[in-house]
Amino acid sequence: MPFELTILGSSSATPTYNRHPTAQVLNIRERFFLIDCGEGTQTQLVRYRIRYNRISHIFISHLHGDHYLGLMGLLSTMHLQGRTSELHLFGQQELMDVIELQLRLSQTVLRFNLIFHPVKSYTSSVIFEDEDLTVRTIVLNHRVPCTGFIFKEKPKPRKLLINKMKQYNIPFKHFTRIKNGEDYEDDFGKIIPNSELTVSSGKPRSYAFCSDTLYEEQVADEVNGVDLLYHESTFMHELLERAKATFHSTCIDAATIAKKGMVKKLIIGHFSARYKDLSPLLAEARTVFPTTELAVEGCRFIVSEKNS
Amino acid sequence: MPFELTILGSSSATPTYNRHPTAQVLNIRERFFLIDCGEGTQTQLVRYRIRYNRISHIFISHLHGDHYLGLMGLLSTMHLQGRTSELHLFGQQELMDVIELQLRLSQTVLRFNLIFHPVKSYTSSVIFEDEDLTVRTIVLNHRVPCTGFIFKEKPKPRKLLINKMKQYNIPFKHFTRIKNGEDYEDDFGKIIPNSELTVSSGKPRSYAFCSDTLYEEQVADEVNGVDLLYHESTFMHELLERAKATFHSTCIDAATIAKKGMVKKLIIGHFSARYKDLSPLLAEARTVFPTTELAVEGCRFIVSEKNS
Repeated sequence: MPFELTILGSSSATPTYNRHPTAQVLNIRERFFLIDCGEGTQTQLVRYRIRYNRISHIFISHLHGDHYLGLMGLLSTMHLQGRTSELHLFGQQELMDVIELQLRLSQTVLRFNLIFHPVKSYTSSVIFEDEDLTVRTIVLNHRVPCTGFIFKEKPKPRKLLINKMKQYNIPFKHFTRIKNGEDYEDDFGKIIPNSELTVSSGKPRSYAFCSDTLYEEQVADEVNGVDLLYHESTFMHELLERAKATFHSTCIDAATIAKKGMVKKLIIGHFSARYKDLSPLLAEARTVFPTTELAVEGCRFIVSEKNS
Repeated sequence: MPFELTILGSSSATPTYNRHPTAQVLNIRERFFLIDCGEGTQTQLVRYRIRYNRISHIFISHLHGDHYLGLMGLLSTMHLQGRTSELHLFGQQELMDVIELQLRLSQTVLRFNLIFHPVKSYTSSVIFEDEDLTVRTIVLNHRVPCTGFIFKEKPKPRKLLINKMKQYNIPFKHFTRIKNGEDYEDDFGKIIPNSELTVSSGKPRSYAFCSDTLYEEQVADEVNGVDLLYHESTFMHELLERAKATFHSTCIDAATIAKKGMVKKLIIGHFSARYKDLSPLLAEARTVFPTTELAVEGCRFIVSEKNS
């Protein structure tokens, strides 16, 4: 089952011709989560062939325009295209004020149920949970209230080897316990070790999205060990003072969080429009954390079940 | 001096990969007027090399998202790029509610002076006037309050032929009257006709923008004789009932307004996403009004001083 991130936008607030503002789609087991929704996201979704109706949950990190100005247009298009399935929206309370005002002015009553989940920006909390995964916020440090999001699959029971169940004639009533890792003792007192009866369902996979933020060391703890970390790196480190003044991070900052957090892969993005060529940013981040990649639009980052 | 319209967006509310929502730039004598500002307008401006800072006035026809959702991002980028020159914004009062809310939430105080001019949607009125031109609203009939805009150059005084001034030894004090079309009588009572002393500065040029609307016959009177008329034509005429139900026009509607209004050229746009190939829309409009063109993104429509 997929765990796959698609980059839709990678620029910071000032758009460039080739880069769009922040937006990403995370496909976890064929459920599609949209993370941030900068201007033009609906067009980017079309470009990368992600159908609007597959998106069930939208997460908005903060209320700077380059992270949410595409939302109203996307909702409107979903409405015009006849969406009826409910849509869950997570963001700060005031986000809904903007949406409600714009809906009222356009005299639009959405055809689908938009379920809003207000997010607190000052404390980390679980904002979504079901049998497969949890989503927890990460407190970030930006000029306005801002949260990251960490998506974690829950551990799955081990997979039974059906031929072994037959071979040892194991009754159905034992299956759940064996799935949960127990050994099996047959009627003659012989112990069959769980490792002979099952295989792993794969380790739970995880993705952390750290939107606009100053370098904050405790973020490394929160993202500890994730498979994939997106961390903004608006500037090269030579512009550290500019980064601090605008509450942003440099490539070195992002890579340091990745290194301290012992994540498996880092993706950097939210590049300042001053950088036409992004290779120096990548090279700089890799001096600290070699398994770094650029958030290039259209790129897909896949976390395998096996390799996790 | 130019009088030139550039199309930035031509789709209706549901965007397609190749077409953007409504936005146009009108360059009148090197003053740049932005008309509507759908999502992605700032990127389109970059694409067609129109610098943001040249735009001095923005006109928003109505508060459906496909006509204004690019505005907040554009204002934000102008701010981030350090604009200091004032910007005049024309639109319905509630437009400013949206902008003020979004500025407040992003904790942004614009570096430039945004001067808002509320527009009444129920009556036609002059909303802008200076020595060169006037802009008047056109009352349209859409699902929400909606106005078109008609830009008209003012008549210019005739140009003096300086060699004739010298030849007839005409004193400077007579120049203004001659520019205004008077003949000249010399000291011996000889009449020199104005046509020998001056040339025309060109007829005043005009452009009418008719945004989303049902077919409304009186619009033809308002746009009478303009050089260039943009009139929405969301649908082919076979979808007339759909057009009526959604308060839009067909190609035949638009062409009929152009014909009754005796305009010089018609531009049709705001095409439904269902039309991948636009040539049937053009062909249909031309059955009624032959000098029709499509609003294709990047196209420029020039009204010459001489030919007007």
